[in-house]
Amino acid sequence: MPAGGSRITLKESNLKKATERVAFQGEKGAFSQEAVRKLLGERAEVIPCQRFEDVFLRLKEKEATAAVVPIENTLAGSVHENYDHLLAYDFEIRAETNVRINHHLIAPPGVRFRDIRQVYSHPVALNQCLRFFNENPQIERVPFYDTAGSVRMVMTEKRKDAAAIGSAVAAEIYGAHIVRRSLEDDRRNFTRFFLLRRPDYPKRERCASARNVEWKTTLVFSTRNTPGSLFRALSAFALRDVNLTKIESRPLRGRPWEYLFYVDFMGRVDEERVRNALGHLRELADFMRVLGCYPKGC
Amino acid sequence: MPAGGSRITLKESNLKKATERVAFQGEKGAFSQEAVRKLLGERAEVIPCQRFEDVFLRLKEKEATAAVVPIENTLAGSVHENYDHLLAYDFEIRAETNVRINHHLIAPPGVRFRDIRQVYSHPVALNQCLRFFNENPQIERVPFYDTAGSVRMVMTEKRKDAAAIGSAVAAEIYGAHIVRRSLEDDRRNFTRFFLLRRPDYPKRERCASARNVEWKTTLVFSTRNTPGSLFRALSAFALRDVNLTKIESRPLRGRPWEYLFYVDFMGRVDEERVRNALGHLRELADFMRVLGCYPKGC
Repeated sequence: MPAGGSRITLKESNLKKATERVAFQGEKGAFSQEAVRKLLGERAEVIPCQRFEDVFLRLKEKEATAAVVPIENTLAGSVHENYDHLLAYDFEIRAETNVRINHHLIAPPGVRFRDIRQVYSHPVALNQCLRFFNENPQIERVPFYDTAGSVRMVMTEKRKDAAAIGSAVAAEIYGAHIVRRSLEDDRRNFTRFFLLRRPDYPKRERCASARNVEWKTTLVFSTRNTPGSLFRALSAFALRDVNLTKIESRPLRGRPWEYLFYVDFMGRVDEERVRNALGHLRELADFMRVLGCYPKGC
Repeated sequence: MPAGGSRITLKESNLKKATERVAFQGEKGAFSQEAVRKLLGERAEVIPCQRFEDVFLRLKEKEATAAVVPIENTLAGSVHENYDHLLAYDFEIRAETNVRINHHLIAPPGVRFRDIRQVYSHPVALNQCLRFFNENPQIERVPFYDTAGSVRMVMTEKRKDAAAIGSAVAAEIYGAHIVRRSLEDDRRNFTRFFLLRRPDYPKRERCASARNVEWKTTLVFSTRNTPGSLFRALSAFALRDVNLTKIESRPLRGRPWEYLFYVDFMGRVDEERVRNALGHLRELADFMRVLGCYPKGC
């Protein structure tokens, strides 16, 4: 929540609480919920979902007013599954944010570091903290479903000898305390999230901290993979000095030699040079769709 | 192993066994071991490693003659960590292969489907089989470290009421049986693996089944992100009809507006048009390195 949040009166706050319901994948306290907070503030009501597809379904069926999904991670790459859902559902990307993935050691209040004999978390999180476990051989690693779920478990079972690895939001939500911060081996672990809305939702998201916001646009297009077809497609941007910030190809299964390209660039779809670039790209591509135009994330 | 494997005499087989030691990440029976078999046959001795970095270290320290690492998955995207290691270590990609990720239900011999009350596996595998669990609510999902490790556990503990989800190789290695095949929700789940060698290792890998092998080359380059810089870099390929099969950008952390690009193209580095393209790209890029030139994978 931006600093101004404290000035919201109770009535407005309730209104806001009633109107924002945000679907995300994972348990309450997942890293996706940190993204929800950065994007919509702390008062947004969350709808935790089991699968990414459930997140999109909740938004489609209007149970959620927004969805927040991870789209790429600095270590693990792009989440192709969510690009697939973006193509299958008719939503718009309205904002982006980058969340630093910090793995904290979290335990029930009163549990001291020297009491801890077992640490629960998702295996991916456990494997990103190997230095900590090598330095502390007295502690056993125990795989669990979910980072946030492991925090909830050590709390509900009131474990005196166990901790979990999870996010700061999970510690806060479940009333646990952070015993040690940032156990992760690699600090370059960031996940980029998109905020999605149905197209009929009013366009009003702004980056709270910036007045002179830079805008980004995300689109998908496909070409036949004849030599030079990507080069020709990119001429649509290069000839108009439109600056790409991401490009990624993905082979289309079952259609040999056809590719999808995911592209992000700096610019708004209502700028003339961007309109011209998109018109030119439409001529050159077999298929093209703008997935969203949104303020550059903080 | 190609069909000709059975003609290898005992002495040759022992020699081969003695000379090929292949490092991979995961337990014995991991999907990486399926890739090892496709690339080097069943007789290669395997060196299971905890982390990807350990795999590269085993090859560097000559404990392994080869390393096999996943580089991208059709659902989960590129494994950036392994691209980072490819840049940090001086190895060559000598072959590639694509492994279909099939999640089988695996139990000790004699265990019938109706006996099964718990299914162990890595949470990522469990989450890729949600339809099966929804249709079988009597079965509890239990997270475990590793797909292959869960197969080993149900076997060593001789569980009568439990199964694991893992690969066919894991079932075979641990003497378990496959109770049900292919539980995965999405059949489009493939992982591409690279076979890596130290540069001094003789170049002799060939795709066993193909005589007229097509060749691919993988390289990494960086440019300053001025508008059109990628377009200019790609002109090196387009002007010589060199056909790209993959392109992916990755922002360089700590160096704003600089990007790494991963590119694959069809062609051998000793073809004249490819030599010319690489020479031209060297002029245009800040940095460029060929990671390998290898037969297109089967």
